Amino acid sequence: MIIDHQADLTLAVELAMARTPDPRLREVMAALVRHAHAFVREVRPTDEEFERGIDFLIGIGQATDEKKNEVVLAADVLGISSLVGLLNKPLDGVRTAPALLGPFWRRNAPECAPGDSIVRCAVEGERLLVRGSVRDPAGRPIAGARIDVWQASPVGLYENQDDGQPEMNLRGLFTADAAGAYHFETVRPAGYPVPTDGPVGDLLRAQRRHPYRPAHIHFMVTAPGHATLVTQIFADEQDRLETDVTFGVLEPLVARFEPKEGGNLQVLRCDFVLEAGETRIPKAPIP
Amino acid sequence: MIIDHQADLTLAVELAMARTPDPRLREVMAALVRHAHAFVREVRPTDEEFERGIDFLIGIGQATDEKKNEVVLAADVLGISSLVGLLNKPLDGVRTAPALLGPFWRRNAPECAPGDSIVRCAVEGERLLVRGSVRDPAGRPIAGARIDVWQASPVGLYENQDDGQPEMNLRGLFTADAAGAYHFETVRPAGYPVPTDGPVGDLLRAQRRHPYRPAHIHFMVTAPGHATLVTQIFADEQDRLETDVTFGVLEPLVARFEPKEGGNLQVLRCDFVLEAGETRIPKAPIP
Repeated sequence: MIIDHQADLTLAVELAMARTPDPRLREVMAALVRHAHAFVREVRPTDEEFERGIDFLIGIGQATDEKKNEVVLAADVLGISSLVGLLNKPLDGVRTAPALLGPFWRRNAPECAPGDSIVRCAVEGERLLVRGSVRDPAGRPIAGARIDVWQASPVGLYENQDDGQPEMNLRGLFTADAAGAYHFETVRPAGYPVPTDGPVGDLLRAQRRHPYRPAHIHFMVTAPGHATLVTQIFADEQDRLETDVTFGVLEPLVARFEPKEGGNLQVLRCDFVLEAGETRIPKAPIP
Repeated sequence: MIIDHQADLTLAVELAMARTPDPRLREVMAALVRHAHAFVREVRPTDEEFERGIDFLIGIGQATDEKKNEVVLAADVLGISSLVGLLNKPLDGVRTAPALLGPFWRRNAPECAPGDSIVRCAVEGERLLVRGSVRDPAGRPIAGARIDVWQASPVGLYENQDDGQPEMNLRGLFTADAAGAYHFETVRPAGYPVPTDGPVGDLLRAQRRHPYRPAHIHFMVTAPGHATLVTQIFADEQDRLETDVTFGVLEPLVARFEPKEGGNLQVLRCDFVLEAGETRIPKAPIP
């Protein structure tokens, strides 16, 4: 189409893409162009601003490698990753909401007895007792469910990021009892920053945003006949929960602190509801 | 903000960005998030589709180097570059619309006399006489205006892309006469494809779109007291003009073919209107 006014452009692009054989690609690209053009018409970028936008996109692509996905990080800090996740798996008030596996899970965490501590060295930090249950959607306990747990230390590092921690520190594999209950001891984890050495870090600084995710504990819960649950339970101060840089704190994934049982032990309650399904163990990000 | 429904997410992100000190950055990012979230809510990408989108963005960033800007190319084939240009410089029906300088302009094109040919070797192709005038917005001729012209050959290559063409082939610098008129001889240029070896090429193939820009001639017109005009004049078959892969064919930039004057000579009329302003010569993309 020969353009004689900017108003024609969106239709011109839609027409050019109309012969796309794959109907889903056609639909997605038409929507992308419509929304992208609406954005451009609303903000009317100057040539210099357009160039800055282009340079940001080049920058996040080029900052991505095997160790860091800066494009996913950009989607995270704009709430897009969380939105996609929630649209695909809406909170239904019954099954426990899933969360990302993340890059730090390892196979073969040490087998633990009920109540064991997963702290494998002297660590400064608040002692934490985690307890809860594994149930099916009807509320029946799932005896023998396996609870694989891993977390960062009180300084915000996983053992495989930190030479100061022993092998498999803050990792353990527990088994639910006949009532579906489990408990273990640990230290309170700390939140940690997303990487800030790329264009996303520059954006966060320009927006006066801190780069922290709130403290959380990772869980993978499995039981025969039930779909594997991979999730994160958030356990932090309220203000940190409110300002997760990736907008990943879902209300049902915030653990409740129970009244202290005397001394300096805090108690965190983490209950899980597993749906029927197949046990699938993800590929470990770390061999 | 702790999220308990996807509907909260857009507000949560806006609040997180609300302390941005730069008001323009705050405005642009708020609009970006609103439009991006609206797009995601409309198409509801699956996890796999989201990953494909992420991979496309990584791919265009990583395919960009000094020789090719794949991110700009993506913006071009989605009509975004043309939209930004038109919003910043709307067609006003008076001054000649600008167009991109492109990567092929060279300083110091050969000085030519009126009517000279810019064809500097034997070339197979239709002979073309280009003529027109340079005027101010009131219609007064601008005597002595300088018209710097460059174009691709009938096979779609500029001389500095093509070992088969002599130095400065299809380039020339003309001077308007007392009536503001100029004319020169050349061959009819050919359109040429945008680069298709990256993710944008894959997208065009999936959309069953050809990668061609229509044939065009580049002009840079200067005159003391007038703003430098950098533009492109399109001269191609109607169907090629209608399907420019970059949506860059603006109605006032389509040249009119005049009736043939006998023989195989085609005549193309290219008139220019320069606004008052300063002469600014762009930095040459090629040293």
